[in-house]
Amino acid sequence: MIQVNLTNMQAFAEEGFQTRLASELRTAHEHLQHHDGVGSDFTGWVELPANYDREEFARIQKAAAKIQSDSQALVVIGIGGSYLGARGVIECLCSANYNLKKKNTPNIYFTGNGLSSDQLSEVAQLLEGQDFSINVISKSGTTTEPAVAFRFFRKLLEDKYGKEEAAKRIYATTDRARGALKSLADQAGYETFVVPDDVGGRFSVLTAVGLLPIAVAGVDIQALMDGAKSMMETCSVADAAANPAWQYAAARFALYQAGKKIEILAAYEPNFRFMCEWWKQLYGESEGKDGKGLFPASVEFTADLHSMGQYIQQGERHLFETVVRLGKSKTCNIVPFDEVNGDGLNFLAGKDMDFIRQQAMDGTLLAHVAGGVPNIIVSTDGCDAFELGQLIYFFEYSCGLSGYLLQVNPFDQPGVEAYKKNMFALLGKPGYEELRQELLSKLQG
Amino acid sequence: MIQVNLTNMQAFAEEGFQTRLASELRTAHEHLQHHDGVGSDFTGWVELPANYDREEFARIQKAAAKIQSDSQALVVIGIGGSYLGARGVIECLCSANYNLKKKNTPNIYFTGNGLSSDQLSEVAQLLEGQDFSINVISKSGTTTEPAVAFRFFRKLLEDKYGKEEAAKRIYATTDRARGALKSLADQAGYETFVVPDDVGGRFSVLTAVGLLPIAVAGVDIQALMDGAKSMMETCSVADAAANPAWQYAAARFALYQAGKKIEILAAYEPNFRFMCEWWKQLYGESEGKDGKGLFPASVEFTADLHSMGQYIQQGERHLFETVVRLGKSKTCNIVPFDEVNGDGLNFLAGKDMDFIRQQAMDGTLLAHVAGGVPNIIVSTDGCDAFELGQLIYFFEYSCGLSGYLLQVNPFDQPGVEAYKKNMFALLGKPGYEELRQELLSKLQG
Repeated sequence: MIQVNLTNMQAFAEEGFQTRLASELRTAHEHLQHHDGVGSDFTGWVELPANYDREEFARIQKAAAKIQSDSQALVVIGIGGSYLGARGVIECLCSANYNLKKKNTPNIYFTGNGLSSDQLSEVAQLLEGQDFSINVISKSGTTTEPAVAFRFFRKLLEDKYGKEEAAKRIYATTDRARGALKSLADQAGYETFVVPDDVGGRFSVLTAVGLLPIAVAGVDIQALMDGAKSMMETCSVADAAANPAWQYAAARFALYQAGKKIEILAAYEPNFRFMCEWWKQLYGESEGKDGKGLFPASVEFTADLHSMGQYIQQGERHLFETVVRLGKSKTCNIVPFDEVNGDGLNFLAGKDMDFIRQQAMDGTLLAHVAGGVPNIIVSTDGCDAFELGQLIYFFEYSCGLSGYLLQVNPFDQPGVEAYKKNMFALLGKPGYEELRQELLSKLQG
Repeated sequence: MIQVNLTNMQAFAEEGFQTRLASELRTAHEHLQHHDGVGSDFTGWVELPANYDREEFARIQKAAAKIQSDSQALVVIGIGGSYLGARGVIECLCSANYNLKKKNTPNIYFTGNGLSSDQLSEVAQLLEGQDFSINVISKSGTTTEPAVAFRFFRKLLEDKYGKEEAAKRIYATTDRARGALKSLADQAGYETFVVPDDVGGRFSVLTAVGLLPIAVAGVDIQALMDGAKSMMETCSVADAAANPAWQYAAARFALYQAGKKIEILAAYEPNFRFMCEWWKQLYGESEGKDGKGLFPASVEFTADLHSMGQYIQQGERHLFETVVRLGKSKTCNIVPFDEVNGDGLNFLAGKDMDFIRQQAMDGTLLAHVAGGVPNIIVSTDGCDAFELGQLIYFFEYSCGLSGYLLQVNPFDQPGVEAYKKNMFALLGKPGYEELRQELLSKLQG
């Protein structure tokens, strides 16, 4: 079960903030439960772990098994919410070195998440001589980055296998009924999966968007969903004492009100790096609007205690930490004894790494709190698929609550259009002629 | 050459800030040039690209060639400045997928940069059946993370090759004369390289600390040094108009004074991710003290335009962006024409990716500036070893100036000790008994 420990942030927030926020939390909670708050069209994720489409889920597992059997690599084309969740889960559960490891499952290459020419070439190079499949993920099919990448890799696949066989190796995760990618898929005969209408990109990791690549990597996606469901039940309870999401949402909002403008998500596992990236999108995109919102940042400890650690300890006091403690490691490593003891570490000989890490966590906690950094601990029992499913849902539900406390629409992202419109205009897309002139004159000015 | 473009930050800073800061900049500059400012004992990096030890440099190249010839993998053990620079340069010049690629140089595994049990096991697993060498990097040899990892991997190496042959495969980068690792290396007969006394960890990428792993990856370290030297000469000129480091340091300080408390370093290449991590240590550790300093964060565009992009466009207005534009890509990829044009992208067919990326850069710039985000552009001609050497020195020199403008000691890191002391106490290290009791009662309280 997820535990939230607020002991080390209390002194930095207004006294009694939990009582003060209780009614606002209850309102936010009811809006989520009853789908009647701002942006409620995009709250389908709330009951998703209970009411997801079982038929499609079985098809995802079947497609994953087919890809595992006929492909040495899967090219996953998607950006934002169609990218970070799957990468986060795969790195966390299988390793950031997943592709390097010896295994019975295909390599997974994420692309279509940028405009780097060199990245396209690299992925193409890594695919040389490999049987591969493509999972293209895009609600509309017209988002520039994935659409461009899909043109490249579809061509590569068709050149290799011919159009007919290639079509059996392309899996499109897209709108249920409309859009460019859906039309193309139907025409060409690609198997399709659904980006639900009522689940926004950053909340979509537990839909086909995330589940297909995650299943291909060999993760038990049933356990992931079961974990999310167990946390869904916990989060449905309207009681601050029993609901960890209420506790986390209240604490971070109280700290924001107390002038802490940056939230640093910290974990002690390198494999958690892209879960932090997923979390940054979830919170940054949900809260960062109307001139408001905590700035989400992340660090990897203890590595970054020798990097950002100095700033956290003694820099501007405008930040707080949320530390994810992932419970027991999968492996047990004991520090070897060394007769010479030149490094003076024999006092650690015979101790296992988890013990040492635990002392580093506690020591860092006390050091940072003493330095003026409020600290929230979010702990899990361990880090398998079930527990990660719990953590994902916990962060999603807390995020919905947080957005409502902040009085923003947590489920839209109007600011993302700004760069796109400008880019289209500068690229000469038909229909943007006027904006193009305006922008060009600004650039020259 | 490095260009700094301040056009898009001027409106957000006090008018005439450059004139106002001119004399402070000159003073800071002179302190760096004459080694007579605060923390001047650690300003050896200023002339390093001109006066580095040529004999040692040749030994680094020789050792790298030996490792390339007798090892399929190099285990690099180091944390903080003994980790991020080498990883940043290797990922930037060779790819974040370096280890995955087919190549004639060894895989490089960075470890000893944390306390993750699973990470140790993973690296050990990746080494199975591989000939490998170790580069252990630690000034003292007693820093917990690398020292623990060195015990593990030295044992693995000695079990595989025997003590004598293992000793020929261990390269220690450490203090010139003293310390635990130096003693051990001399005793055991490891080849040693020097962490200079007058260059702090975060400024050490162009010493043996960074150069040995970088050379093993096949990077032309002579070009890297030559680039740094050319920028050293540029940065030695006491003239704001000719010195890009003066321009950058002044602009970011003026923005800080104008209430922008977060600097986001953005690049449009996934391979630049760990150069951003290097930059975060450089600036965070140099400036984050005495309750002051810009909070350094980073994003990878365009990926994060679909993640942090919303916050940057419309969240709290307490941030600015510094965008690194790396010039021409190594590869040229043309968007394929598609008769069906379901994705509506034929207006891009025949265009190369660099053109598209350029429009994304300009479009994003205009969108963010219109949204209230000051923007600094740092551009390079391209991204080879020479140009990256320039960029590294540029950021180092700007950092020294920045710290002096902020009136902190940019070359110490007193805050890093806090977590270490607590960790030692909780781990039961002899000599920390009193602190241990104090901390334990805090944890129980």
